[in-house]
Amino acid sequence: MSVTAAQGFTAAGIAAGIKENGNPDLALVVNNGPRRAAAGVFTSNRVKAAPVLWSEQVLKSGQVSAVVLNSGGANACTGPKGFQDTHATAEKAAEVLGVGAGEVAVCSTGLIGVLLPMDKLLPGVETAAGRLSGHGGEKAAIAIKTTDTVHKTSVVTKDGWTVGGMAKGAGMLAPGLATMLVVLTTDADLDPDVLDRALRDATRVTFDRVDSDGCMSTNDTVLLLASGASGTTPGYEEFAEAVRAVCDDLGRQLIRDAEGASKDIKVEVVNAATEDDAVEVGRSIARNNLLKCALHGEDPNWGRVLSAIGTTKAAFEPDELNVAINGVWVCKNGGVGEDRDRVDMRYREVHIVADLAAGDESATIWTNDLTADYVHENSAYSS
Amino acid sequence: MSVTAAQGFTAAGIAAGIKENGNPDLALVVNNGPRRAAAGVFTSNRVKAAPVLWSEQVLKSGQVSAVVLNSGGANACTGPKGFQDTHATAEKAAEVLGVGAGEVAVCSTGLIGVLLPMDKLLPGVETAAGRLSGHGGEKAAIAIKTTDTVHKTSVVTKDGWTVGGMAKGAGMLAPGLATMLVVLTTDADLDPDVLDRALRDATRVTFDRVDSDGCMSTNDTVLLLASGASGTTPGYEEFAEAVRAVCDDLGRQLIRDAEGASKDIKVEVVNAATEDDAVEVGRSIARNNLLKCALHGEDPNWGRVLSAIGTTKAAFEPDELNVAINGVWVCKNGGVGEDRDRVDMRYREVHIVADLAAGDESATIWTNDLTADYVHENSAYSS
Repeated sequence: MSVTAAQGFTAAGIAAGIKENGNPDLALVVNNGPRRAAAGVFTSNRVKAAPVLWSEQVLKSGQVSAVVLNSGGANACTGPKGFQDTHATAEKAAEVLGVGAGEVAVCSTGLIGVLLPMDKLLPGVETAAGRLSGHGGEKAAIAIKTTDTVHKTSVVTKDGWTVGGMAKGAGMLAPGLATMLVVLTTDADLDPDVLDRALRDATRVTFDRVDSDGCMSTNDTVLLLASGASGTTPGYEEFAEAVRAVCDDLGRQLIRDAEGASKDIKVEVVNAATEDDAVEVGRSIARNNLLKCALHGEDPNWGRVLSAIGTTKAAFEPDELNVAINGVWVCKNGGVGEDRDRVDMRYREVHIVADLAAGDESATIWTNDLTADYVHENSAYSS
Repeated sequence: MSVTAAQGFTAAGIAAGIKENGNPDLALVVNNGPRRAAAGVFTSNRVKAAPVLWSEQVLKSGQVSAVVLNSGGANACTGPKGFQDTHATAEKAAEVLGVGAGEVAVCSTGLIGVLLPMDKLLPGVETAAGRLSGHGGEKAAIAIKTTDTVHKTSVVTKDGWTVGGMAKGAGMLAPGLATMLVVLTTDADLDPDVLDRALRDATRVTFDRVDSDGCMSTNDTVLLLASGASGTTPGYEEFAEAVRAVCDDLGRQLIRDAEGASKDIKVEVVNAATEDDAVEVGRSIARNNLLKCALHGEDPNWGRVLSAIGTTKAAFEPDELNVAINGVWVCKNGGVGEDRDRVDMRYREVHIVADLAAGDESATIWTNDLTADYVHENSAYSS
């Protein structure tokens, strides 16, 4: 499954010694063709890691033959030496695979501000190349984990063609891309511009609306590679829908595995004047630390939802706002609504509906609660 | 001291029974003149509590004779009945004090979405009026506490005139005003427009730059009342400086008392192209949950500072950024700087300097770390 579910792809995941604990830390994904079309979406953080700067250049050609991914180090804020290391990684993969370095994308994840141990990483690329397999997708997905407790894969199979993929990420999930690395593959026969459109259409309503803790990474990367090995060219809508389904599934897996979270919170904003308004309001709710604490305590605190909405520029009248929590309209017309004691908060999933009563547009943002475990995990991550 | 440090003011603080635990919950501050000039600054949250809507109207005249403040209930999201209750509170104070209701400001703090027990509050106003005293400032400051562990007061005395004040607030501290109620008094003889200018000049660089958890309240109010009782009219700069000093001191007290915090974090952004850039960058750093967790763990994680800066629109080049934590330049030119092991993180105060290398402007934002105690306190606040 994973990145090797689609025909034309091989992958490997190994322990190269980048992580001091000996866990798997290097993945290689190879597109064996016949085509090597590709598209990519990257972090909108202006502080970009070396592999992001490199891969952005690679993707400009619309051609990717292989992707090298490592955990155990983000290679971010590492200056010219960091960029040289990314370049050397691509060169090494190109050499052992017999392709051009300009067709090798690189992704890194882990601590910021630390140089990668190239004496481990470069031999690792060679080892991984020797273990490439049509069943290597799971191992590749495992090798890119950092604080993830599970590896994440997803596959959608259609009439003769497939879209599959893997993701890593568990916290620092935020807009403009959750903090994560994602590689999607398909054996559909499509041009880079179609892949690019389908990928952007999908990420805009999936990964971009996963906002676990409002923190945007320096390394976020989502790649979509197409081998054409199925010989099938699906229609745009059908293909885009499959890509969206895989992205949606992987995004939900990221939320479920968010660091220290005890609740998955679906914030649905309805009857907004514009989709932008709906997204702005959804994010303001999703990022409200006081609300996230309240939901952790299983307290359906709609006042904090209204406080959050009030900080936005969206079109609404305060005395027309309605809020439902798990199906109970606890706030009506900006004031007290149905009995809050009727809200059942025992389950992991919490569903908030914010009705702006200002139009017909809507958007859904996924987030997590704020917990003592989140604090503990992120107090001790480095040093 | 507090609001009765300046001549011409009396105050009282009592337990009216609004809080079920019997703690003090009602304060009254009266300006006995000869002048009743006043200015106010209110929350920029679009969801405003009834007392904010009322007091905004009162302040339009530039005249305030008395302020009624209650803890134990915010009277926010309470609809027309909530507004009627605020109006009735002002009417009651006006009646017992022999002034016009249109000169009585009202401030409330506590839970959102709950009507105030008017059968307790209105008799409480009468009781408080009977206990007004020129030494009542401390009791008034105590009566407005919610989750505050200490009451907050500050006084600056100049040549023949004084500015004093009280504040409540401990969390939900954010921009456009920290969540708080503040009443400042002075016996300087000044017009409302001068008070307004001095108050806005002061709050812009003090309370507006206190950002404990990024959450903006529905009830924030800062009032400045002038009695003219000193018979002295100070020059603008001298007066504005005194108001700023009192606001700065009270703001620092709010940060020191923030819910569950273990660190007070001073984020100083220097060499920005504009002051707006400096403030935007400061807020992005102050609101980064991952960084706030790291600092709680005494981890000088400069990578998270850079990640936060990268999410802003401020003018800077990623490879020209410098970051100092407690005096050690741990990040230079966007990469690794001085040894992070040299950073001493043992003390409560943490000082971050972010150098954008893009101009001459600067700004300082104060925030707190994110702790398990914060989560606990805010998981259990209501219900």
